[in-house]
Amino acid sequence: MTQFPIVDGELQVGGLPLRRLAERVGRTPFYAYDRALLRAQVNELRAALPAAVRLHYAMKANPMPALVGFMAGLVDGVDVASAGELKVALDGGASPAEVSFAGPGKRDAELRQAVAAGVLVNIESAREIGVLAQAAAALGMPARVAVRVNPDFELKGSGMRMGGGPKPFGVDAEQVPDLLGQIAAAGLSFEGFHLFAGSQNLRAEAICAAQCQSYELALRLAAHAPAPVRVLNLGGGFGIPYFPGEQRLALQPIADHLAALQARCERELPGASLTLELGRYLVGEAGVYVCRVVDRKISRGQVFLVTDGGMHHHLAASGNFGQVVRRNYPVAVGNRMDAAACETATVVGPLCTPLDLLAERMPLPEAQVGDLIVVFQSGAYGASASPAAFLGHPACVEVLV
Amino acid sequence: MTQFPIVDGELQVGGLPLRRLAERVGRTPFYAYDRALLRAQVNELRAALPAAVRLHYAMKANPMPALVGFMAGLVDGVDVASAGELKVALDGGASPAEVSFAGPGKRDAELRQAVAAGVLVNIESAREIGVLAQAAAALGMPARVAVRVNPDFELKGSGMRMGGGPKPFGVDAEQVPDLLGQIAAAGLSFEGFHLFAGSQNLRAEAICAAQCQSYELALRLAAHAPAPVRVLNLGGGFGIPYFPGEQRLALQPIADHLAALQARCERELPGASLTLELGRYLVGEAGVYVCRVVDRKISRGQVFLVTDGGMHHHLAASGNFGQVVRRNYPVAVGNRMDAAACETATVVGPLCTPLDLLAERMPLPEAQVGDLIVVFQSGAYGASASPAAFLGHPACVEVLV
Repeated sequence: MTQFPIVDGELQVGGLPLRRLAERVGRTPFYAYDRALLRAQVNELRAALPAAVRLHYAMKANPMPALVGFMAGLVDGVDVASAGELKVALDGGASPAEVSFAGPGKRDAELRQAVAAGVLVNIESAREIGVLAQAAAALGMPARVAVRVNPDFELKGSGMRMGGGPKPFGVDAEQVPDLLGQIAAAGLSFEGFHLFAGSQNLRAEAICAAQCQSYELALRLAAHAPAPVRVLNLGGGFGIPYFPGEQRLALQPIADHLAALQARCERELPGASLTLELGRYLVGEAGVYVCRVVDRKISRGQVFLVTDGGMHHHLAASGNFGQVVRRNYPVAVGNRMDAAACETATVVGPLCTPLDLLAERMPLPEAQVGDLIVVFQSGAYGASASPAAFLGHPACVEVLV
Repeated sequence: MTQFPIVDGELQVGGLPLRRLAERVGRTPFYAYDRALLRAQVNELRAALPAAVRLHYAMKANPMPALVGFMAGLVDGVDVASAGELKVALDGGASPAEVSFAGPGKRDAELRQAVAAGVLVNIESAREIGVLAQAAAALGMPARVAVRVNPDFELKGSGMRMGGGPKPFGVDAEQVPDLLGQIAAAGLSFEGFHLFAGSQNLRAEAICAAQCQSYELALRLAAHAPAPVRVLNLGGGFGIPYFPGEQRLALQPIADHLAALQARCERELPGASLTLELGRYLVGEAGVYVCRVVDRKISRGQVFLVTDGGMHHHLAASGNFGQVVRRNYPVAVGNRMDAAACETATVVGPLCTPLDLLAERMPLPEAQVGDLIVVFQSGAYGASASPAAFLGHPACVEVLV
């Protein structure tokens, strides 16, 4: 993990030595997200991508309010997955014009909130049309909608498949023409399409192929649309490396491919913007989870570093967030970065369960009580995606530095 | 699931028809725990077990404060896993004399709180001895301790293995004699042993074998103890059935076996009480998770019931709480209990992830928007063990009825 500098053997996060940062936070465990890295990641992406491609932050990856506010200032829009996220996005300064709301089970009250807020709703079910029409009439406001399409293909090699086959997400591509007719009949304000084929993909060619298929599908569906397409959200799927042997995603092939799609879009769907919706890719590498060694135990020849953090704060690192086979996230002793790995240690948390595992039999420097354990690649799907109340331990703190 | 009555096709929980209960709660999703079932489970166990065997509630299974208070009135003691749980147990009326505190990474402040509260600390590391001695001196109070032993055997066929081999839990059996010497030298008040070999086991003979091995090990270790053994906590491990084909645990063989152990204990360790520490077994079957159908979708021939509840409230039912292979928890349409299963449906939640699954391709009656989906066997490791903040949906409510 080269994104965080090391000075005098100590990891620097947000420009601060880790131990000083821990003192500033006042307690462990904590998550820290580095503003400079967040900004650098967005800038790198902007520099590579065609200028006309719009960049959205999918805040489900990390809904920490301060971070959402910061990201809202860097990207072109924010994608939310619930009314709760909508509130955080708006509080954080996101412009309602550039907020979109997706989710397979939007409650009636949430749909009404979305209309009142003036954000774009990605319709995922015919049921939503009636609720939105009613809300629009009651509020005297347009119901801005796009159609989330469940494509008839999938993003190959994804961590999660979000499209292809029977799915609760979106509307099956073959049902979309009929749905577009219903949208027109209900008087909703149609703006475009949203296609999201998969997530956490490290293969540029697979992402390009899915983007191409998404574009072609949207182009076919646009012929049935009640209004010109203004928004064509191609989803995300850009992965980050977590495990040994994984390489960072190659941006250039995607950028080249998007430039060609953008040129087609300008000809074939004039007035439409291509949008990428990225969560993990924008924030995942900018965050660390930090906990403190509470005990060092040797049981039957195996070294255990028992920390004050664990699966209750970081379910994904424990291997219980959808992983089929558990692999170690990158882990280090943050105040001994120059020390050689001289022993094999297992890093666990304070919970009375063998699931509470942060690193299993990993080569590490000899850590002592009080040392700071760092779990890298923790900026996405960390604090908010973990069972914080499990076993009644203190909540973890999140800081943006 | 026969523990909840059905009246006029509607499930009754806590003596109330489910739809009325939902109205009383005021919203979905919610967990409901049935007092009568909790009481019946404890009574059934008491009736089967030798009267002298003490029954503890391991509140990690369900830390809802009202439930902990209710359970404290039914059992002989409460086992806590953190200072946070300790507070809830004491608030709930548990007597400090009958509270014990286990956990592999107790922080210094937690150990001090335990001494101040006067509860029994299960020592899991030599480090804790010094901290406890210091706390005892500072507070002018005895530090009551037992030794949590990592046995040299495991509970075969368990959902989770908590003992045998290298483990972060407890002190390796072979290191215990030396540790007992340190406890004596530090002037701590020794009371006994705690052995916990595994959890969620449905094989009575495996539980009996582990209890027997635990007893024999404790008897050998007692020869090194600085004071007579008063508490011999044999752990738990009693499972409940979740999946098709699983049978309820046979209590009688365990009761017979414990009666024999109790007789030995009276001869060989006079003054010692055998204790069972049960969590899931006491509360798991008394609870349901209830959510409402928000949408009914058919995608490429497959029926999806999209509900307002999901993995953010019930990680275990989604198959992401340590399960290697996901299997469906028992699920029903709570207001259509008399209707025949006439279709195969997949029940999902509102989250934008394929992990958000409550039942996959399950035969169910034809459910409609507004119907109440019930997940049974949800009284343990439900609300507290789930990533409640994920995607910003409303928190679920818990009620004791």
